[in-house]
Amino acid sequence: MSRVKHKAMINVDLGEGYGNWSCGPDPEKLLPLIDHANIACGFHASDPLIMMDTVEQCKAHGVKVGAHPGFPDLQGFGRREMKLSHEELTAMTIYQVGALKGFLDRAGVPLHHVKPHGMLYGVCCRDYDVAKAVFRGIPKGVPVFGLAGTCMEHAARDMGIDFIAEFYADVKYNADGSLIIDRKKGAWDREEISRRVSQQLETCSVGAVDGSSCDLPINDYSTSICCHSDSPGCIEIVEETRKVVDAFNNKYFPGG
Amino acid sequence: MSRVKHKAMINVDLGEGYGNWSCGPDPEKLLPLIDHANIACGFHASDPLIMMDTVEQCKAHGVKVGAHPGFPDLQGFGRREMKLSHEELTAMTIYQVGALKGFLDRAGVPLHHVKPHGMLYGVCCRDYDVAKAVFRGIPKGVPVFGLAGTCMEHAARDMGIDFIAEFYADVKYNADGSLIIDRKKGAWDREEISRRVSQQLETCSVGAVDGSSCDLPINDYSTSICCHSDSPGCIEIVEETRKVVDAFNNKYFPGG
Amino acid sequence: MSRVKHKAMINVDLGEGYGNWSCGPDPEKLLPLIDHANIACGFHASDPLIMMDTVEQCKAHGVKVGAHPGFPDLQGFGRREMKLSHEELTAMTIYQVGALKGFLDRAGVPLHHVKPHGMLYGVCCRDYDVAKAVFRGIPKGVPVFGLAGTCMEHAARDMGIDFIAEFYADVKYNADGSLIIDRKKGAWDREEISRRVSQQLETCSVGAVDGSSCDLPINDYSTSICCHSDSPGCIEIVEETRKVVDAFNNKYFPGG
Amino acid sequence: MSRVKHKAMINVDLGEGYGNWSCGPDPEKLLPLIDHANIACGFHASDPLIMMDTVEQCKAHGVKVGAHPGFPDLQGFGRREMKLSHEELTAMTIYQVGALKGFLDRAGVPLHHVKPHGMLYGVCCRDYDVAKAVFRGIPKGVPVFGLAGTCMEHAARDMGIDFIAEFYADVKYNADGSLIIDRKKGAWDREEISRRVSQQLETCSVGAVDGSSCDLPINDYSTSICCHSDSPGCIEIVEETRKVVDAFNNKYFPGG
Repeated sequence: MSRVKHKAMINVDLGEGYGNWSCGPDPEKLLPLIDHANIACGFHASDPLIMMDTVEQCKAHGVKVGAHPGFPDLQGFGRREMKLSHEELTAMTIYQVGALKGFLDRAGVPLHHVKPHGMLYGVCCRDYDVAKAVFRGIPKGVPVFGLAGTCMEHAARDMGIDFIAEFYADVKYNADGSLIIDRKKGAWDREEISRRVSQQLETCSVGAVDGSSCDLPINDYSTSICCHSDSPGCIEIVEETRKVVDAFNNKYFPGG
Repeated sequence: MSRVKHKAMINVDLGEGYGNWSCGPDPEKLLPLIDHANIACGFHASDPLIMMDTVEQCKAHGVKVGAHPGFPDLQGFGRREMKLSHEELTAMTIYQVGALKGFLDRAGVPLHHVKPHGMLYGVCCRDYDVAKAVFRGIPKGVPVFGLAGTCMEHAARDMGIDFIAEFYADVKYNADGSLIIDRKKGAWDREEISRRVSQQLETCSVGAVDGSSCDLPINDYSTSICCHSDSPGCIEIVEETRKVVDAFNNKYFPGG
Repeated sequence: MSRVKHKAMINVDLGEGYGNWSCGPDPEKLLPLIDHANIACGFHASDPLIMMDTVEQCKAHGVKVGAHPGFPDLQGFGRREMKLSHEELTAMTIYQVGALKGFLDRAGVPLHHVKPHGMLYGVCCRDYDVAKAVFRGIPKGVPVFGLAGTCMEHAARDMGIDFIAEFYADVKYNADGSLIIDRKKGAWDREEISRRVSQQLETCSVGAVDGSSCDLPINDYSTSICCHSDSPGCIEIVEETRKVVDAFNNKYFPGG
Repeated sequence: MSRVKHKAMINVDLGEGYGNWSCGPDPEKLLPLIDHANIACGFHASDPLIMMDTVEQCKAHGVKVGAHPGFPDLQGFGRREMKLSHEELTAMTIYQVGALKGFLDRAGVPLHHVKPHGMLYGVCCRDYDVAKAVFRGIPKGVPVFGLAGTCMEHAARDMGIDFIAEFYADVKYNADGSLIIDRKKGAWDREEISRRVSQQLETCSVGAVDGSSCDLPINDYSTSICCHSDSPGCIEIVEETRKVVDAFNNKYFPGG
């Protein structure tokens, strides 16, 4: 019997422009390629008009929508570390998820998941109390996306929150399996993306920046591969990831 | 048979601090005196932590909670006019109401109403299309607070939204019944507050700044008197208003 | 003797990204083509890091630097109208110009001019008191860029401020010579740009959106043609404008 | 011969309101009691109008004015730690100091010093590279206020920047002499303020929160005692500090 329990999926952060500024490719080109969208909620990126439009686009394409709360730092795109109290972390999560839910309720689209953004994600991975503070702001019954084997998984497990394990197509890993959160994303080679995604799905491991290979346990969780819309060559990255994911799913779930 | 169809009530804007800055008196002193709170949603005032705490305080005091969306202008406290597109107005209302609803859902408190803040309220009174754009952002079945006889009432009526008519204890009126929205509130004399509230409730009219008397039709709507927590002497204003409102209610609804 | 008293020049708004978001083409491609840069000061666009880098780039290319203050509205890119008090307008101009001057002083680059941005520019054109309020925030001896024949010119003249008259390569005019300030810039045809710039320089008139021709008096002022870095096809627009401007200058100032 | 080389002085942070929100007592009551004002520059508090007014008030009272740059975090009042790149720290300091200098230049008041605010001050004390990055944003010849014996002193010394050593009347010290930066200031007893300021001036030591006494070397620097305008009972704290400072100055500099 196969060790693979769930089909792999793809998630991408969307709605990460602000006012006149855009970020990433035309969503109409991305949406046919992905399963899950993480929509920015106005703190690290996005604004009400962008959120309203992005929810409508996701609905039209049948892409499931999650909230993507971040640190209150538009200038730093939520990729600069900030030290907030636990109460602030809970409150800012409730606020951002609630704001997105306003648009979802209106469009008749359910909230599929919550995924912390950028440096907030990074701190949730390494700080159990921060992860719990953030997760306390998530409505009951809504799963979180995160890195298995980190404080995100432990906090979700201890709080009875469903967990979906992520792999990262276009983010570098440290040897201990933690992510390297850069302010701006660099370019990737298509073949490298293909190789990395394939390795992560098949072996639950990935090459780290120091040349070593690090394990990325996903236990029995569903898996979603994250690609970033602000990576240079985003469409190519997602296309490549889609190919690998489709091949993987056809191999382990041949009946579809 | 009396012309008075509904008991009068009192509403106050709450949660209008920001970060370390506070606004108005201790809510614990205000909440026992009022019926409805309009909680700021982070655009003209408030932040997630303040909203979370304010919702809990309202819940503890049994005060009904409405959302109080405003222009995106913390520096101007939502009292500077901004020209936004209709889509932006709708989207920013959905966002702010949704954010507050996040806290209400978590506390198990229903959203009682929506009341636009400051200059947004002022523009909704005089611009029918703006009022409709804002009201399109309100969840179905939720009433609005506004000025009867203005575009707020007309838009609510045309959109099938329940309307609650307001009088203003501590805001000056123009001769045409429109409100004068100052950046900062001035001081009031207790007796003048008492006289104004009483006149508005009993005669549906009020003295305007030019010395004339202006009519404030409320038709058959429920009425809520608005007092501002940032008026100097706020507690005294609300106490005085409470006395007049209680006397009015006892007179027309003697059975309680 | 020629009516043309001054060479024509080209100015472009620069530094109009924010944090991770960029706006317009690589400045290294634009800077060789222009004479004056108007650097955004952090209120409608830009941030300290972008301003520091942009000042250095202008210095390296010998492009003269002006301050480009705008309304405090990043989300609206300073293209939404806001009603501020005259004191606020003066203070926000001093603040923004001072902030840019911090970078200029450090780089040893003089402040060449001040040019209000977007909707602030639009309101200065039509409201004499607003123009004066803004201009009161400009350091002594520093010229302003603006539209001749509008309140900008009248206020500058009455306040003894040097004035440089602008033409717009890529903005549409109303029949009365006022500019149409859209939130986002549309695309232009190269030949149309060439024709418009040439017509403005040679005849001090331009085709308006209603099909009429409107006069754009520039009196005896120096003239600078404005192109926008956020117009689609910006580099082509500026290249085309450069050709027309160079031809114009060679014609009227054959000795260079 | 006395070890005391310089008169003691008093500095207070001013202009720390924002829009409609105020912070601390009426500056007219504080200004007669102090020597130096540190004016917030719009990132952790203040706005252009407040800065313009505060500069005028300081000028009228002959109080020397310093810039008080902070982290870009109005909601956290600059008291939440943020991790910024060194380039960002330099640029944000240039920006904030330049903005204040805009108002000073206009009022004909020199920039007396720069003092980082809140958590930025705290990080400068413990991180030499951060201190240098911030100090690189200070115009040549302008002194900094800071804690002697920390990275602030070392960076200033290594960069050839004049240094003025601070004592804190109303902030608690750790046993190692570092400050405890709370989001909100607590209340103090008048006698405790008097005792602490006197001890710091006379013995260059202070009681730490763990009950120990810690040394606060000031070497040969000028000394300025810092009081906070957002401490409850601010006026009383400053009055008490003034008495102790005046007595100290009269004792060691009897000729005035």
